[in-house]
Amino acid sequence: MTERIFNFSAGPAVLPMSVLEEAQRDLISLPGVGMSVLEISHRSKTFEDIIEAAEADIRKLYNISDNYHLLFLQGGASLQFSMVPLNLLEKGGQADYIITGAWSKAALKEAKKVGQTNVVATTEAENFRRIPKQSEFNLNSEACYVHYTSNNTIFGTQWQSEPEVGSVPLICDASSDVLSRPLDIDKYGLIYAGAQKNMGPAGVTMVIIRKDLVKEPSPELATMLAYKTHTETKSLYNTPPVFSIYIVRLVAKWLLGLGGLEVMEKMNQEKGHLLYDAIDSTEFYKGHAEKDSRSLMNVTFRLPNEDLEKKFVKEATASGLDGLKGHRSVGGLRASIYNAFPKEGVEALVSFMKEFERKNG
Amino acid sequence: MTERIFNFSAGPAVLPMSVLEEAQRDLISLPGVGMSVLEISHRSKTFEDIIEAAEADIRKLYNISDNYHLLFLQGGASLQFSMVPLNLLEKGGQADYIITGAWSKAALKEAKKVGQTNVVATTEAENFRRIPKQSEFNLNSEACYVHYTSNNTIFGTQWQSEPEVGSVPLICDASSDVLSRPLDIDKYGLIYAGAQKNMGPAGVTMVIIRKDLVKEPSPELATMLAYKTHTETKSLYNTPPVFSIYIVRLVAKWLLGLGGLEVMEKMNQEKGHLLYDAIDSTEFYKGHAEKDSRSLMNVTFRLPNEDLEKKFVKEATASGLDGLKGHRSVGGLRASIYNAFPKEGVEALVSFMKEFERKNG
Repeated sequence: MTERIFNFSAGPAVLPMSVLEEAQRDLISLPGVGMSVLEISHRSKTFEDIIEAAEADIRKLYNISDNYHLLFLQGGASLQFSMVPLNLLEKGGQADYIITGAWSKAALKEAKKVGQTNVVATTEAENFRRIPKQSEFNLNSEACYVHYTSNNTIFGTQWQSEPEVGSVPLICDASSDVLSRPLDIDKYGLIYAGAQKNMGPAGVTMVIIRKDLVKEPSPELATMLAYKTHTETKSLYNTPPVFSIYIVRLVAKWLLGLGGLEVMEKMNQEKGHLLYDAIDSTEFYKGHAEKDSRSLMNVTFRLPNEDLEKKFVKEATASGLDGLKGHRSVGGLRASIYNAFPKEGVEALVSFMKEFERKNG
Repeated sequence: MTERIFNFSAGPAVLPMSVLEEAQRDLISLPGVGMSVLEISHRSKTFEDIIEAAEADIRKLYNISDNYHLLFLQGGASLQFSMVPLNLLEKGGQADYIITGAWSKAALKEAKKVGQTNVVATTEAENFRRIPKQSEFNLNSEACYVHYTSNNTIFGTQWQSEPEVGSVPLICDASSDVLSRPLDIDKYGLIYAGAQKNMGPAGVTMVIIRKDLVKEPSPELATMLAYKTHTETKSLYNTPPVFSIYIVRLVAKWLLGLGGLEVMEKMNQEKGHLLYDAIDSTEFYKGHAEKDSRSLMNVTFRLPNEDLEKKFVKEATASGLDGLKGHRSVGGLRASIYNAFPKEGVEALVSFMKEFERKNG
C-alpha cells in the first residue's frame, strides 16, 4: 500500500485518487491497444478518442456552445500572456488590464511588448488583499479586450463574479480556478488555464476562444503562436502533450461522475468555509484577503509572528500536511485546496491549527 | 499480464519497458514522498532532484562540457523553429538552411518570418532520397548560423556525420535521432529535440545551447521565447512539464545502464542492418533512401504496388506489428525503430516480410 500525504501545494497539485489509479493500471498498456498512452501516436485513433472525449466532457461541464473552440496547447499561462496580445491586440489598438496580483502583472508585461495597454484597476497599493470593485474600473470602450485573472494563487483572492465589460471581449486567466465552479462561457471572449492546478498535470494549457476572435495572424507571427494554427488543426498542428491531455480527460470524467461543476462548487465551498471559519474563530490566525475577495482555492493566512509561522510549517509537514509555506510576497501560510483536495485534508489541517494554537497561543 | 504489441510508430514512440514499469510502480506515490510525480510542485526538492538527475545523466551520455546549457522546454521542435531565428538571427544578418525534408522546410518557413535566409543545399528535386554532400553546400561565412535536420523521419534519411561549417554556429534539429549515437557536442552551437521519439513522451523539448550564443533578447521578444529566460532560471521560469521530464530522467538512466551511447549505437546498427539486409536481399522490397543516406531510426521502403502495400500494412497490424504505414510524401512502408524499439520486433518484422513475399511475390 502506498503512503499518501495531504498535499497543499499551489500547483502542480493533488489529483483525484481514481484518476491516478486508472492511469497507473493502464500505464504499460491501454486496454485493447497494446501500447502505453506514453507511446501512442498523436495521429492514432486511440488518441483521437482521448482528445475528443476530453473536449466533449469539458464542453459538457461548462456547457460551452458551438461559438467557441476548445484547444489544448503547450507553454502554460506564461505563453498565453504573449499569445493573447499577439493575436488580439490589433495594430494601433489598446488593451485593458485589471491587476490583482503577480500573474496579472506578468500578463501585462508581455502585452506591453506588443502594443498599448491600460491598467484599468489595481489593488497593488493594498498588497492585493482584495479584488477591485466594478465602480473602480476605468474601462476603455475601444479596447481590443479586457484581461483579468480570476483567482490569485499567491494572494488568495478570487473574483466572485466576472467584471462587467460591455461589448469588449473579456479575457480570463483561469489557471487556478478552472473547472472549480460553473461559468457562463458566453460572457467571455477567451479563457485560458494551465492544467496543473485544477484539471491535470503540468504540461498542457486549455484555451477556450470565441470563434470570431480567431483572426488571420500577421505574416511575421510564429506559426505556433497563432490561435488560427491550432483551431484549424484541432490542437494537432504538432505533437501535443499526449499524456497530459489523457489525464485531463480522466479528470473531466471524474468531474462529470461527481455530478458536474455545481456539485464541485458546493464541495469547494464546504472545504473553504471549514478553513476560513477556523481562521475567523480566533485572533491567533489572520487571513490575508479581505472577506469578500476570499479564494476558495488558495487560503492565505498569517500567525502572530514569523517564528511561529516557521514552526507551524515545520510541524505541519512532519504531520503529513505538506506545502503550506506561503509565497514570499505575502508570507505566512497558504493552503491550496483545489478540486481534488480531499475534505479530510482540510479537517486534518483545522485540527492541527487548533492544536497548534493551544500549544503556542 | 498486459498484452503489448510491436509499435513501429514514427513518434510518439516506444519506451523502454523498465521505464514504463518504474513509472507505473511509483505513479500513485513516489517512494518516500507520499505524492504522485503528477502532483509534486516544480519548486520541490523532489523535482529539483529529478530535473538535475535528468540533466546530469544526459551530460554524461553526450559528454557535454560546461560551455553548454541544457534546457527542458515546451512546444516541441515546432516552437524551436521560431525560437532559433528569434534569438540567433541578428538584425540585418542571414541564416543558412540545409533542406533535407519536411521538417527542415518547416524550420526555414519560420526563419523567413524573422530575417534573411539562404537555402544552401536541398535534395527536394530527388524527393529527399539522400543527404547532400559537403561539396554541394553553398555556405555563407557571414551567416549567423547553419541549420540542418540530423534525421528525416518521413524520408528515412540520416546524416552520417555533421556538415562542416567552419566557425559559423551549427544548429541541429535532432528530434528523431537524439541520444541514438555519440555526438561531439563541441561541433554544435545549438541542438534541439522533441523528446517523443528517442528520449521520452511528448511534451518536453531538450535544448543544448553553447553559452556564448545566449544573448540579451530584443525588448519586444516574448519572455517565454528568449533562451536567456530559461538559462537564467534553469528551465524553471514557469511550471515545466514535470512528468515528461521525469520520464526523460528514467530513459537517461536506462541508457547509462545499457552502457551509454556507444552501446546504444551498436544496438541501433544491429537492428537497422537486420532490416536493410531484408530489403536488399530481394527485388520485392525497395528502399526509398539511397544507401549512404539511410537512417537507422526510420526505415522507408516500397512494395511492387500500392495494393500490396495496403495489404502488407493490414496484415502486419493484425499480426501485432503496428504503425508501419508510410507517410503520404513517400508512400509505402516506414518502420521506426528508435532506441527503445526491441530487436525482437525487428526480427518479427523481417519474418513477416519474408512470409509476405512468399505469399504475394
